[in-house]
Amino acid sequence: MTGDIQRIQSLFHIRYPVIQGGMVWHSGWKLASAVSNAGGLGLLGAGSMYPDIFREHVRKCKAATEKPFGVNIPLLYPNAEDIIAIAMEEGVKIVFTSAGNPAKYTAYLKEQGMQVAHVIANMKFALKCQDAGVDAIVAEGFEAGGHNGIEENTTLTLIPYLRNKVHLPLIAAGGIGSGEAIAAAIMLGADGVQIGSRFAATTEASSHPAFKEKITTLKDGDTQLIMKRVVPVRMVKNTFFKEIKEMEIHGASREAMIKHLGKGRAKKGMFEGDLENGELEIGQVSAAISDILPVREVMNNLVNSYRNAMEDVSKNKF
Amino acid sequence: MTGDIQRIQSLFHIRYPVIQGGMVWHSGWKLASAVSNAGGLGLLGAGSMYPDIFREHVRKCKAATEKPFGVNIPLLYPNAEDIIAIAMEEGVKIVFTSAGNPAKYTAYLKEQGMQVAHVIANMKFALKCQDAGVDAIVAEGFEAGGHNGIEENTTLTLIPYLRNKVHLPLIAAGGIGSGEAIAAAIMLGADGVQIGSRFAATTEASSHPAFKEKITTLKDGDTQLIMKRVVPVRMVKNTFFKEIKEMEIHGASREAMIKHLGKGRAKKGMFEGDLENGELEIGQVSAAISDILPVREVMNNLVNSYRNAMEDVSKNKF
Repeated sequence: MTGDIQRIQSLFHIRYPVIQGGMVWHSGWKLASAVSNAGGLGLLGAGSMYPDIFREHVRKCKAATEKPFGVNIPLLYPNAEDIIAIAMEEGVKIVFTSAGNPAKYTAYLKEQGMQVAHVIANMKFALKCQDAGVDAIVAEGFEAGGHNGIEENTTLTLIPYLRNKVHLPLIAAGGIGSGEAIAAAIMLGADGVQIGSRFAATTEASSHPAFKEKITTLKDGDTQLIMKRVVPVRMVKNTFFKEIKEMEIHGASREAMIKHLGKGRAKKGMFEGDLENGELEIGQVSAAISDILPVREVMNNLVNSYRNAMEDVSKNKF
Repeated sequence: MTGDIQRIQSLFHIRYPVIQGGMVWHSGWKLASAVSNAGGLGLLGAGSMYPDIFREHVRKCKAATEKPFGVNIPLLYPNAEDIIAIAMEEGVKIVFTSAGNPAKYTAYLKEQGMQVAHVIANMKFALKCQDAGVDAIVAEGFEAGGHNGIEENTTLTLIPYLRNKVHLPLIAAGGIGSGEAIAAAIMLGADGVQIGSRFAATTEASSHPAFKEKITTLKDGDTQLIMKRVVPVRMVKNTFFKEIKEMEIHGASREAMIKHLGKGRAKKGMFEGDLENGELEIGQVSAAISDILPVREVMNNLVNSYRNAMEDVSKNKF
């Protein structure tokens, strides 16, 4: 069963069924408003913002676009409740929750008139999302950057598997950085897509220029999912990665790894630009990204390559 | 750039651009001839056959179909040279090589009038395939069962990444078990697909009935890529898997793991039906497989769902 993009377009009142992932350290107001202005749905990444900073980003985003935008809130983030309160006060109407149980806040958020999408990586949590009454499900595959599911389902296997049982609008995430990949996701049953890495490599992303530049140099095999005994994260294979990998090979304990991880590793890498000692979270699709572009150009490329692919593929009849 | 199925159809003289993976213990003459008779390309899996058994399977396959069929030869298999010699003597015209360097035999095989496809999992080896003069490249993603690439590229990220640089006919493998997934692979730039798991769960597969039954019960997360320090293999999480995993967690050496693996683990699981102590290799897409069907029915389902998906998806214009 193929997807139906109108479900996502009408749910969020957006022109293109393209959601920009609310990535930590990348997704500030400049990126989110630019994506919304270009016809997608921009998301602020609250996971790397203290509450007062988050309020500032919401206000700046509102000033920069009249289009809908939303916020991604990792439910395990210690300030999640404060972030939710601020989102309500500031009139944010769309919340993407992740890294937690959808039953926790969905009913409450819906009562406040918000639309809720929840990010999952397996069937069990997709069914929990249905029970919790979310408006849409983001299904994220193994190839995605950052935090990742322990089942390691890839986007290609996860989307059709869910589509057969899940009736809610379904958004595919992980490995999508081109119009061809958007079209493939819809072919597999997704109603829309969430794109991270391609939007991380934009002028508007708030991450450190050195990290953005690094993204454009990555080849296949330059990221890997690691820290599976702590929380699985896909990151660039830099010095920090190699240290963690050595620890894993030699049977280090979970506690020892948490200690070595320490605090602020992701900020050090992605925001402060320490490319060797910081944690650099990015998806596999980074291998296919070779330029830092303005959001508008990225969106134009996605739209044009999608249209070409949909037309071009139709010659393949049998 | 989307794919062009005519390149694979005309290369192998087949009706559908569907190749059945030459899987160890599954892919005997019954499976290969049934797939070829149904309009795909059947492959014998020589990796689990002694030379005299292989000769027998080739002869029976020739008797059972007038359509083209081929053989998969893992180049690291100790009997690879004998297998090649027999394939030539018996007039097999299509060889899929895997698990090794395409430069090793391609020129020799081509001189003997054979067509050669080589299985790879990253850009580096795709480019080696071009240099070696193969006729087609099979690009296999992380979700595939059995042996797997160390880069862990998923099919969704690998295919478009290769398509931009590789001009040879490109066959996508890993995670493909439905017409929607075939269509998605072509959307991403593949000219054809190789399907393993879905053909393993057929009446004609030569694997043990208990293993085939097991495939139909698997859920998402029931397989995982493991033994990365020996040779990465995706297998079912049974008792043997858990033993290996425990060893990895506690920092066991490569030698200790090879010793525990021992000889004949895959045969014990897949051919003898020891579901707990054997090695059960199968892809992630097994989660979406719930029945053992005759090959003809599998092929009909693939063709029909492909046609429906290609027609249905066209409503998604933006």
